[in-house]
This record gives sequence, structure tokens and C-alpha cells, in this order.
Amino acid sequence: LKTPQGLAGYSCKKLELVTVDDFVFSRLHAGNTSNLIKAAVTPAFTAQFPGVNGLGISIARLDLAVGGVVPMHTHPDCSEIIVVIQGIIDAGFVSSANKVYFKTLKTGDIMVFPQGLLHFQINAGTTPALAYVSFSSPSPGVQILDFALFGNDLPSNIIEETTFLDDAQVKKLKGVLGGTG
Amino acid sequence: LKTPQGLAGYSCKKLELVTVDDFVFSRLHAGNTSNLIKAAVTPAFTAQFPGVNGLGISIARLDLAVGGVVPMHTHPDCSEIIVVIQGIIDAGFVSSANKVYFKTLKTGDIMVFPQGLLHFQINAGTTPALAYVSFSSPSPGVQILDFALFGNDLPSNIIEETTFLDDAQVKKLKGVLGGTG
Amino acid sequence: LKTPQGLAGYSCKKLELVTVDDFVFSRLHAGNTSNLIKAAVTPAFTAQFPGVNGLGISIARLDLAVGGVVPMHTHPDCSEIIVVIQGIIDAGFVSSANKVYFKTLKTGDIMVFPQGLLHFQINAGTTPALAYVSFSSPSPGVQILDFALFGNDLPSNIIEETTFLDDAQVKKLKGVLGGTG
Amino acid sequence: LKTPQGLAGYSCKKLELVTVDDFVFSRLHAGNTSNLIKAAVTPAFTAQFPGVNGLGISIARLDLAVGGVVPMHTHPDCSEIIVVIQGIIDAGFVSSANKVYFKTLKTGDIMVFPQGLLHFQINAGTTPALAYVSFSSPSPGVQILDFALFGNDLPSNIIEETTFLDDAQVKKLKGVLGGTG
Amino acid sequence: LKTPQGLAGYSCKKLELVTVDDFVFSRLHAGNTSNLIKAAVTPAFTAQFPGVNGLGISIARLDLAVGGVVPMHTHPDCSEIIVVIQGIIDAGFVSSANKVYFKTLKTGDIMVFPQGLLHFQINAGTTPALAYVSFSSPSPGVQILDFALFGNDLPSNIIEETTFLDDAQVKKLKGVLGGTG
Amino acid sequence: LKTPQGLAGYSCKKLELVTVDDFVFSRLHAGNTSNLIKAAVTPAFTAQFPGVNGLGISIARLDLAVGGVVPMHTHPDCSEIIVVIQGIIDAGFVSSANKVYFKTLKTGDIMVFPQGLLHFQINAGTTPALAYVSFSSPSPGVQILDFALFGNDLPSNIIEETTFLDDAQVKKLKGVLGGTG
Repeated sequence: LKTPQGLAGYSCKKLELVTVDDFVFSRLHAGNTSNLIKAAVTPAFTAQFPGVNGLGISIARLDLAVGGVVPMHTHPDCSEIIVVIQGIIDAGFVSSANKVYFKTLKTGDIMVFPQGLLHFQINAGTTPALAYVSFSSPSPGVQILDFALFGNDLPSNIIEETTFLDDAQVKKLKGVLGGTG
Repeated sequence: LKTPQGLAGYSCKKLELVTVDDFVFSRLHAGNTSNLIKAAVTPAFTAQFPGVNGLGISIARLDLAVGGVVPMHTHPDCSEIIVVIQGIIDAGFVSSANKVYFKTLKTGDIMVFPQGLLHFQINAGTTPALAYVSFSSPSPGVQILDFALFGNDLPSNIIEETTFLDDAQVKKLKGVLGGTG
Repeated sequence: LKTPQGLAGYSCKKLELVTVDDFVFSRLHAGNTSNLIKAAVTPAFTAQFPGVNGLGISIARLDLAVGGVVPMHTHPDCSEIIVVIQGIIDAGFVSSANKVYFKTLKTGDIMVFPQGLLHFQINAGTTPALAYVSFSSPSPGVQILDFALFGNDLPSNIIEETTFLDDAQVKKLKGVLGGTG
Repeated sequence: LKTPQGLAGYSCKKLELVTVDDFVFSRLHAGNTSNLIKAAVTPAFTAQFPGVNGLGISIARLDLAVGGVVPMHTHPDCSEIIVVIQGIIDAGFVSSANKVYFKTLKTGDIMVFPQGLLHFQINAGTTPALAYVSFSSPSPGVQILDFALFGNDLPSNIIEETTFLDDAQVKKLKGVLGGTG
Repeated sequence: LKTPQGLAGYSCKKLELVTVDDFVFSRLHAGNTSNLIKAAVTPAFTAQFPGVNGLGISIARLDLAVGGVVPMHTHPDCSEIIVVIQGIIDAGFVSSANKVYFKTLKTGDIMVFPQGLLHFQINAGTTPALAYVSFSSPSPGVQILDFALFGNDLPSNIIEETTFLDDAQVKKLKGVLGGTG
Repeated sequence: LKTPQGLAGYSCKKLELVTVDDFVFSRLHAGNTSNLIKAAVTPAFTAQFPGVNGLGISIARLDLAVGGVVPMHTHPDCSEIIVVIQGIIDAGFVSSANKVYFKTLKTGDIMVFPQGLLHFQINAGTTPALAYVSFSSPSPGVQILDFALFGNDLPSNIIEETTFLDDAQVKKLKGVLGGTG
């Protein structure tokens, strides 16, 4: 990193060059939801907002158009809390014990998604939804299930052997998501 | 703790009793700002929301009436990110190098406050302000400067020797905040 | 826990009752692979082998019959190293950047699977395969993709919205894995 | 860092250049207490003593002339233990629960100050006092309350709004400590 | 490090250059046991196998010829689990409470050696033994007792004063292990 | 633990019962050095001084009579800093790379001993020596080499095979230190 964090032993920028704008982020604008999933996640992670480097926390803005979905995904290295600002969101996760925790969240509700577990959010209302999601890491990783399975060159037969999905299903989604093999 | 967290090795409740409501918190209602500082912090920490136990993150709602102030304070054990939902907030912190990072935050802006450093938030607008504050700990500690100095039995002469404040000033604030000695 | 670990500050058993058998585990016998996936994982985690409690490491034995598969899964809280003792194993994982790392492992080969990422192992040979898998946690969590999606009461329409799988596919696998909804 | 630590995975110097003098520090001489607070802290932190880098511990020498004071301050990232070598020291801290823990320490006494909490030390005797202070970090941060409030450009009205101090008091201490605004 | 790890925030190699061979290690060949101790440890640590960097785990192969011994040693920074693949191994460690945990391990047995404690392994059978040893660190340190005492320039009189060994014994072993002083 | 720590999330005592005496320790008196090694270590660890629990630091007093020795030992779980208060002390450690770092420390000198490595201290002067030793753990473990080898029931032949010491030497020291086997 060539950017600031400072103050706590991780500085990446000369201290005299650090300004308050290294700790304030004003670009969490509404994301563009004109896409397949009608959703947009706008991050303020270390890459976008170096001020969080070394501080164990970061945040992102989540916009869900009507019908919008954050598909099933995991964060391999951190937990997440969502707070709903506008609209209604169906959210859930599946535990290591394979149990489903699933609820419709109203404005003002929060939900926590423990580290590394599959989870999702869906706009459950008739208006756009807005939420903020905080993470227990300054640079959260993410693994979106469909992209991991169908958006690369993982051979179809391997996918089928390890997920029990049908060949036609695998190939159909590879078609949609640009996968090969 | 006799409450749930589960799923990641810190369970405090029998797994079969855990429900989604252990991971959802719907009581982040607007706090009562009819107080000295015209501010209210409504926490969803381990004590209120055991679902975050062991997950390295928590959140609180911050309401600032017109003229409201979160006085100078520190979190001894975690960093904080604020996101402004409504209104305008003056926020700042002082670094270990004694430099001030201070800015007026508009709706949608975020700011990070590194662990253990003095910081504050002030409603800088003419309408109530609303923000959410996330923490890199499930049970953040807090030390509010005025309460630490003037709201207990720390002897006045000790306060004066270690802060260089005048005796009259110390006694005036002890009067306001209930301090003795 | 009501079991030993001792020696490093986490004791759960009176020190005078701890014997060498608290640190030795002789029950990593060949698992029963007469099941759907023709595979068996026999763990020596904290639950089975309390001696590892607090020590940041554990191990399991992996038996793969001919045609055996460890289906796509993640460990939310630790990394894994496999060492192949007998046979030939196809193993792979998908990174956060959605790239596939996939290789045929021969006897004596090792492979590392970073924390929280989807990975799998398949017997790629014509004889049973044996491997040991070590984890950077004394009590690894695991989330098996198919069980998480199809082995519980996660509603089919939610699965379909968040994975783009077809309804028939979802219901077919729910039938196999005992899922409802 | 361009200096040694070595031996445990954090080396910053070629191993063949490391000598015992990278692990021994002979410059913890008596500090100059001819200053406003009649006190001197002489550190052996990573910056002065790179041998502690990565080892989770450091130390400093504290000299307090008669009347000397270590003003109210915090360490944002570590706990501290003081051991009194000569003289008598009044020491104390304020907890997150706003309770004061305050005592007169005699030669040979120790006291622990938990991470991030306001604390202070005062020479309570009629002779110079000497102490050593150890920290649970190789490079402790420090925030001295008076300097944080009055020794920089934090606007006076902001200080007053967030601390309830009177304007005259704030300006008086800004005058002493070089603050502006 | 100038080598890869990637995927979890510790990358040391351009992502597009990372291949599966950065995560697979095929060089854990049988070590050469034609040496004084008739033993060979072949490591897959960060230095040999950069793929484990940042992942909290590593592994090594242990070959013990008939009569082979891994002499008394410690790992200052990690715990270890051994799994016996071939042969019979006497293994043990001494706790901080000075108690001996010692057992003959058969093929398939595992044993855990807690961080920082003296331990050893001996081929207790009449055929070569093979084991894998996993560590809770990607780059384990090791301190072999005999080399630490007798294989360097630690003055003999210092060794004798701090170990109570006889001068003749110290000098004899210095002769064998190349020590001076 | 049934004792206090408080303030930082690890409390073991009702908060209202915690007093300043839970954070002050006045019993670091001169130890009795009338023993085999003419040395005494008086600890203020969690067991003696619960106030340090959870704070990542502790301290001990070291008294060395003329001729006194702290024999070769390791701390499996923490680093140590010594500060010499009176007298002259020869101190040293051996690194993982088997290099000796050894020096005569004068009053006021400090030395750091990295985690898990063999180290020692010897009174090198003609008067009693006094030092304080700080640790990066609230409850340091310790393994004294001679006790680990000769002060328990580790079989002599195992000691000899794993240390190359002569049988006569082993049995002589077992006699001194109470070992059997």
C-alpha cells in the first residue's frame, strides 16, 4: 500500500501528508443497480479507503433495486453486520450445523452474519432498499457462490461430482456467467 | 454470558434453542435525546445483542438532536466507523502525534476513528441527525472524558495536578456531573 | 469443555488427572466409506481430542473409496493442508478472485487450502485413497455446500433467487439430501 | 524499519549483522526533569530499541523530580505495569465504568494500568522518584490529555462543546501549551 | 518474501503469476538419514512452500531410520501434531509443570506437542519410520537443545553454571557438535 | 479464576467488589536466595496478581545472591525484558539460528529475551543483584532445562538418546534434582 493509515503503527504515508480526508470517505454514493442482480455494493475497504488499514473494521453501502439480490456468498475472513436504512430486506445465513437463520428485516433492523458462512440479502419490498454493511476486517474477502462455481474454468465434470448438480444446469449457468470447461 | 452466539465456537446457549432472533436485533429505536447533551447512543453490543459475541464487530445507533453532542471520549479496545444517515455532523479525533483530524460530515459520509484516541461528534445542522456507528469489537468499552474526570471521587487536587485545570473549573464541573472529592 | 488441554493456560481438567493419553489419539481408524459420497472424514478435533484445545492446530483422517468425493465445502475459520498417503486425489479450491487452483495430487504431495474458500477432493485413481488433513484451528468449522443449500428448510424460492439454480434442480437435490421448503 | 529484531520472523537486518547489542539497551539514563511537569520518560520502544520489534513488550524509565507529574494520559494500544524503584508515587486510573483506582505506591510496589484508560503518576514524596514502566506493545502509543486538547489547532468552541470547559479555561491552557484556534 | 501466497491479503507475487503450483508442494521426498541422528526432517514451511504464508499452518516429513532420533528440541512459536505413517515411534514432551508425557506411537497414532515445550521422537522399531508433522505456524522456529548448548561459542563455564553439567561432559559434546569456547 | 481483572472484558469478580488493591501488588519482596542456585524469582503473574488477567503483561522480581544463577530456561509463550536495578548480571540467550547473544549487564541496562528461546542470568558481580523482569503474558509459562530433564521420571535412556549426555552425567544430575527412571 502506498496510502495512509497512520496513528496506530501501520503508516504507509508520511505523517505530515496525512489529512482528515484520509479518514473521511465521501464517495459511498448510490451504486448502479442496472445489472443482472439489480444490486450494487459500494465498498469503503482498504483499497478504496486506506484510512481503515490496520483498524479491524470497514463498511460498504448496499443498494438493492426492486427485485434486487445479493446472491449467496461468504466472507472468508470476517463477520458482517447489516443495518437497513430504507426498504425491506430478506436476509439469512446457514450455520456450520446446517441450520438456516432467515428473516425479513425492516428499516432500522440489524442482522449479524458470522465469519465464513453462506449468506444472502434480497429486496423483499416494492421500493428500492438501502443498507450499510460493516465488516470486522479492513479488507474483507468475498466469494460469491455462482461466480466461484460457474464463472471460471472449473471443469464441468468436477463441479458436477462435487456439487451433484446436473450437467445441463451447470452448463446453463456457465453460459450466463461466462464460465468455460 | 448465558446467551447465544454460536456457530463459531463461542456458544453460550444450547444450539437447539438458538433462533434467527438471536442474530437479528430490532430494538435500535430512536434514543431519547432529552438530556444534558441532547444525544443518545443505543447500543447493539454483546450485552444487548449476544449474537455478536465472538464475532469481532458490533453497532450502535446515534441520535443527535439539534445542538446535540457526543462529548470527547475514547474506546480503549476498538476502532469505530460512523456513517451519517440524516443531518450534518462535525466529527473529529486527535492522533497520538497530537494532530487534529476534524471535518463536517454530510449525509452518506463516513469517518473512521482509530482505537483508543479521543474523538467527538456534534450535530452541526439545524435538524436532528442520525448516524450508525460500527465497532471492531463485540463489546466496546468507552471512556467519556468529562465523566472520567468529574463524575466520580477522583480528588480535585489530583485532577488539577494532572490536567492543569483550575480549581474553580474542576469544582464547577464536579457540581454538574456529580463528582465528589 | 470438561476435558484436558493443560500446559498452556487453557486447562479444563485437574492437572493431576492429565495423562499422556490426553495428548495421544489412537482412534483415527479408517472411516466407513459405504455412503453416498464414498468418503469418510475422521476428526481429531477438540470434541474428540481435547488435548489440542488452545493449541491452534488439529488433524483428521480422510478415506476416499474408489469414486469417493469430498464435496465442495468451506472451513469458515481455518486453513487446511492435505498430505496424500495412498492413492491419487484431484483437489482444488476457488480463490476470492474467482480463480481455480486445481491439480491431481500423487502420494506424498501436499496442497494448502486457504481459510474460508470453497474446495474439494476427489479420488482420481482406481484404488482407495488415504490422506491426512491438518487445520489451523483446534476445532474447525465446516460448511458443505450441498447440505447448506439442500439439506435444511431454506425455502426453494430463496435458494433459486440467490443461486440462479432451476427449481427442478433445487427440488431434485432437496429430495436426495432431505431438504424441505 | 531498517533495524534488527530477528529470531522470530520479523527480521529487518541481515542475520549476520545482528549482535548482542541489538538486544541490549544501555541508554535508559536518568531523563532531564527540568521542565514544566518536572518529569521525564525515557523510552526503549521499537524506535529506540529495535530488538523488541515483534516481541509484544517494551519498557521505559520514568524520572519524577520533587513535584513531578506524569499528566493524565492514555495508551491506545497497550497495558502498562509500573514498578517503583525509588521514592513514593501517587498513581491511579479511571475505569470504563468511571470508577477511580488510586493509591500511593511505595518503593517496590507495582501497579497495572489497563489498555486505553486514563491514568497518571505523581511524585508524592520529598525526594526524586524513579520507576520503570513496562508495556504490552513494542511501540506503545500515548495520548496526553492536555496536549490533545490544548496543544494543537482544535477550535476552542469545539473543545468547549465537547468537554464543557469554560472558554477562559480553554484559552488559558492553550496559551500555556501552544494551542491555536 | 518475493514469493506467492495470495488470496488472503498477504500476496507477495503478482496475482496473474500465481498458479496452482504455488499451493501444491511435491518435494516432500524421503530425507537422507545417513547422519549422526539417523533422522531427516523435510520441511514445507514458508521458505520452501510460500503458499502457506499467512495461513497459520505448515507441514514437514519426518524420516527415522532404524535407531533414528529427533533430539530434544522446542518450537518457540507453535504447536505440533505428529501422525505416524509407518513404523513405531517413541515420542514425548515435558510440560511447564515438569511432568513427562511419553508414549510409544503405532502407525496411525497422533500426538500433540504444545508450543514451546521440550519434546523428542525416537524410532522405537526395527524398520524405518515415517511420519508427518504439522505446525500451527507457516514458518516454525526450532531450537535443538544440543546445538543450542554445544554447537556454538557459548563459553563452557557459562554452560556449566546454567546447566550443572560437568566440564568434561560439556567439552566432549562441544567436540562432537563443533562448539567452541 | 475467581479473581478480579475487570475493566476490559475479562472480569472474574463482581465489579462492585473490585478495589484499587486488585491492581496494586505490594508483595514483590526480596526472595529467599538460600537455595541451590542462590536465586529467587518472585512473580506477580495472574495467579498471584489477578489484576493483570487479560492485559498481556506481567512482572517478577529477581534476586541473585553472590554466585546466584537463573539456570538455562525458556518461556514457551512470551518474551521477557530484564532491567538491572542493582549489581552486575551476565545474561544471554541462544537464537533459533543457534547463535549466542551474551553480555554483561550493568545497573540500568535492559535486555530482551525473545519468546521460547533458551536464556539465563548469572550474578557476575561481588554483591547481590536485583532486577525486574517483565513478560508479554499475564501468566508466563516457564521450562527450566535441568528440571525438565533431570527432575522427573523421564527414563535415563531416553534422555541419553535425545541429548547425547553420558549415563553417568544423567544419573548424577537426577540424583541432585530428584529425578527417577
